[in-house]
Amino acid sequence: MKIIPLGGLEQIGMNITAFEYEDSIMVVDCGLSFPSDDMLGIDLVIPDVTYLEQNLDKVKGFVITHGHEDHIGALPYILQKINVPVYGTKLTIGLIENKLKEHNLMKTTKRKVVRHGQSINLGCFRVEFIKTNHSIADAAALAIFTPAGVIVHTGDFKIDYTPVFGDAADLQRFAELGRKGVLVLMSDSTNAVRAGFTASERTVGKTFDGIFAEHKGNRIIVATFASNVDRVQQIINSAYKYGRKVVVEGRSMVNVIGTASELGYINIPEGTLIDIEQLKNYTDEQTVLITTGSQGESMAALSRMASNLHRKVSIKPNDVVIFSSTPIPGNEKAVYKVINELSQKGAEVIFQDTHVSGHACQEEIKLMYALLHPKFALPVHGEYRHLVANRGLALSMGIPKENVLLMSSGDVVEISPDSCRVNGHVPSGGILVDGLGVGDVGNIVLRDRQNLAQNGIIIVVLTLEKYSNQLLAGPDIVSRGFVYVRESEDLLDEARRIVDDAVADCLDRHLTDWGKIKNIIRDSLSDFLWKRMKRNPMILPIIMEVE
Amino acid sequence: MKIIPLGGLEQIGMNITAFEYEDSIMVVDCGLSFPSDDMLGIDLVIPDVTYLEQNLDKVKGFVITHGHEDHIGALPYILQKINVPVYGTKLTIGLIENKLKEHNLMKTTKRKVVRHGQSINLGCFRVEFIKTNHSIADAAALAIFTPAGVIVHTGDFKIDYTPVFGDAADLQRFAELGRKGVLVLMSDSTNAVRAGFTASERTVGKTFDGIFAEHKGNRIIVATFASNVDRVQQIINSAYKYGRKVVVEGRSMVNVIGTASELGYINIPEGTLIDIEQLKNYTDEQTVLITTGSQGESMAALSRMASNLHRKVSIKPNDVVIFSSTPIPGNEKAVYKVINELSQKGAEVIFQDTHVSGHACQEEIKLMYALLHPKFALPVHGEYRHLVANRGLALSMGIPKENVLLMSSGDVVEISPDSCRVNGHVPSGGILVDGLGVGDVGNIVLRDRQNLAQNGIIIVVLTLEKYSNQLLAGPDIVSRGFVYVRESEDLLDEARRIVDDAVADCLDRHLTDWGKIKNIIRDSLSDFLWKRMKRNPMILPIIMEVE
Repeated sequence: MKIIPLGGLEQIGMNITAFEYEDSIMVVDCGLSFPSDDMLGIDLVIPDVTYLEQNLDKVKGFVITHGHEDHIGALPYILQKINVPVYGTKLTIGLIENKLKEHNLMKTTKRKVVRHGQSINLGCFRVEFIKTNHSIADAAALAIFTPAGVIVHTGDFKIDYTPVFGDAADLQRFAELGRKGVLVLMSDSTNAVRAGFTASERTVGKTFDGIFAEHKGNRIIVATFASNVDRVQQIINSAYKYGRKVVVEGRSMVNVIGTASELGYINIPEGTLIDIEQLKNYTDEQTVLITTGSQGESMAALSRMASNLHRKVSIKPNDVVIFSSTPIPGNEKAVYKVINELSQKGAEVIFQDTHVSGHACQEEIKLMYALLHPKFALPVHGEYRHLVANRGLALSMGIPKENVLLMSSGDVVEISPDSCRVNGHVPSGGILVDGLGVGDVGNIVLRDRQNLAQNGIIIVVLTLEKYSNQLLAGPDIVSRGFVYVRESEDLLDEARRIVDDAVADCLDRHLTDWGKIKNIIRDSLSDFLWKRMKRNPMILPIIMEVE
Repeated sequence: MKIIPLGGLEQIGMNITAFEYEDSIMVVDCGLSFPSDDMLGIDLVIPDVTYLEQNLDKVKGFVITHGHEDHIGALPYILQKINVPVYGTKLTIGLIENKLKEHNLMKTTKRKVVRHGQSINLGCFRVEFIKTNHSIADAAALAIFTPAGVIVHTGDFKIDYTPVFGDAADLQRFAELGRKGVLVLMSDSTNAVRAGFTASERTVGKTFDGIFAEHKGNRIIVATFASNVDRVQQIINSAYKYGRKVVVEGRSMVNVIGTASELGYINIPEGTLIDIEQLKNYTDEQTVLITTGSQGESMAALSRMASNLHRKVSIKPNDVVIFSSTPIPGNEKAVYKVINELSQKGAEVIFQDTHVSGHACQEEIKLMYALLHPKFALPVHGEYRHLVANRGLALSMGIPKENVLLMSSGDVVEISPDSCRVNGHVPSGGILVDGLGVGDVGNIVLRDRQNLAQNGIIIVVLTLEKYSNQLLAGPDIVSRGFVYVRESEDLLDEARRIVDDAVADCLDRHLTDWGKIKNIIRDSLSDFLWKRMKRNPMILPIIMEVE
């Protein structure tokens, strides 16, 4: 029995794990990553599934734990190469279908809605969906019944005894599995560094009620994650209670709420939701806006409102803006920028007690170990430091050190009832998507973009006569992203002289090797600019030839 | 009486404020900013001091509150234009002198060391230095005695009743000033959103002792801010106590500790400090490394150790790495990256209770208002959201709303015993420094760099015959940062055809206006790439002419 994480360990997001036994492979999740800062111009990153393509006939299906981008986002790309059925709970499949529609894949993709408690058979595996809680409704853990034993994959989870929608995590079922014997637990590690127990989603609703009660005279704007349907439900509940109309703004928010509402995951009282165009028919204190942009994304609705770029809504001094979110690492500065802009327009900004995490903290992770008491632990979901923390919890729960394994993407983990170890590697990593291009931007292109970004480019063009190698035109110098040309005429004149001299020198020496001529131009200009400016622009000599 | 903040309000860092009365101007601080994410390739940002240059004969001197980069870093640039004396406490002047040496300005710059409690006269101003505490030794608040009344500028401050070095903040003097009457308080706002009272620096020393006691068998590496001399002192104290030798690593760390040690701000027991070359003579448990890189800076010593790029030190599974710092907003991801790398090498990473802030929290700011009870409050130092929070504290301390003013950079604040209001604007903002170039990179260049970074560049070159306008060579296409050329030959062939057609069309129509020809090339290629790829590279047509 093999477990092969193809992504999601070094590169956060991009969760995808293959489970293989003889001629059966099933894949859990198929997520995307957002590009890291050094992936300039990249829109998103999808996993390398070479291994699955090489074993196409074995692959039985994708089993999806929940509907977040880092678990479903790569499906439209991967399904084009690996066209197998997709299994998930109702909301999860609903959100996947939105993507399939966008990519025109509805007709070709088989999909099946699975209920919590229900099992599906995929080759030699039986997979049971078990109710958990998370920051999106309808999340599931998976109990994978394999010939080697039972493997429990928690997906992203928290334990919410008082969820806003549906039931609490099915602790009874986890307990039952634990009593019968679990071979491996693969547990969410995202919050493994945090002590305690994540608060119930319901606590945020109480905070909203308090804020609505206190700010009866203000317009209220709430920014949160589009996919957090229960959060939106609670904002709507408070709005209804205090007699306000609700506008939902931002494309992804409108999409998710639409799907959730169609499928019955959100309950909006008749007449509460209004179109943004109708805002003008109400006074400020009669309305609430629920919007995207809680991460400071520059193109999201809230950022556009804050910087006066939103066509329908601008921020006013009497507004109260609630951030019902916490910045994802890397987004802090962008979020503070939006808060500063909102403050400058006189809005009051509230971000205390208006968010809870969707991930299990230490006591919940320990509870999962306690219920399941697995023989082996393979922590998943989180940066390496989180996996280390999860390992610490596993050890504290009595799992022997040699039975806890921290995997890397591409590891082939061989599991038997008695052992668990890395026994090989398969290709893994991220494929970059830029516009419609998938995989046509790699390290060389990124290095060029990095260099262009830092220093700009200088292009040197000249035309030579064929055979005689006489200079017919140029050398001309054109630069972009280097210096403000009008203010730097002296420098550019000097640079031109350096290039003139270099070219004249090459021609005097009757050099005919264009590669050499280009190198001489590049080196002399580069030396000059470093000495004079301590800068290193990309220098691109182009030689044209006329007969 | 005028107060003119020339920087430091919108752009964090870059603190510089002019105080003007009739023919006297004195300037408090002269800091730099580090570039924001959109300032591609920029090394640092210095304030626009056009207003000071226009009033050069009035400017009497720079008064510096403490030796951090955001308060002294622009001096070497600005002193070249405004050569007036610089005043500061001993360590502050020592750190400034390091910069003057680097920029070869020691001979031309007058400087004067001022003791706490001492006053200096600058034109019609008398300025008294008052002891405060901060994350660098020798910080001072300033009491500026002006014809309009007393203005107190706190600089960056905290109140530490049990400082590691020297005295606690001089509360008696603040109280005395308050009793006699203070017109304006300009108070640090950095931590104005945080409740409570910032812990004493000394508490970190206790944590260090605990960690050293617990990890007697490990090598210990501590990353902290180079300028936090008291922090380094406490690490050295713990090292000495537990019989370890200390290596100081990282250029800025070596510089600051050198200066602090020369001037008597740090006390290193004989034989404790060893050179990095001597590390090999000791076992791991006999050594401590104090290093730069606590912010995840990719070129700093710790990052190089973590990624195996450091020539002398590599991380081992038995190492304990202490982050004695907190990530500055924007650096979180870089810090987590280093922590992940350290964890992957098996090091234990500790970051709890190993840092305290250098800035006053709400109760300390309120204490300052209580001691001084100023008529007017002009919050400084912090993002806008922090200034808003400081205003909240001022109001809670009974200062009337109309007496609290949130300034913007470039505001001219007119102050009299009875009023305080913005009464004009002067030029302000950031001047970008890239290599040796000061101000030669502006918005156009940055926009080009942004575009190049996101999409790369395609250059189209062709040679035309003069007069006849016949095509002699090209069009050739060269790209950088666009696609991986070897994998995209079809696309580039198509692009070449599009350009060929566009050029042929221009020549058929006998177009002679090069601007038009370039536009046609640009538009047709751009349309094609957008339709085919949903990408927008910079397209740069270059036409050469041969007689």
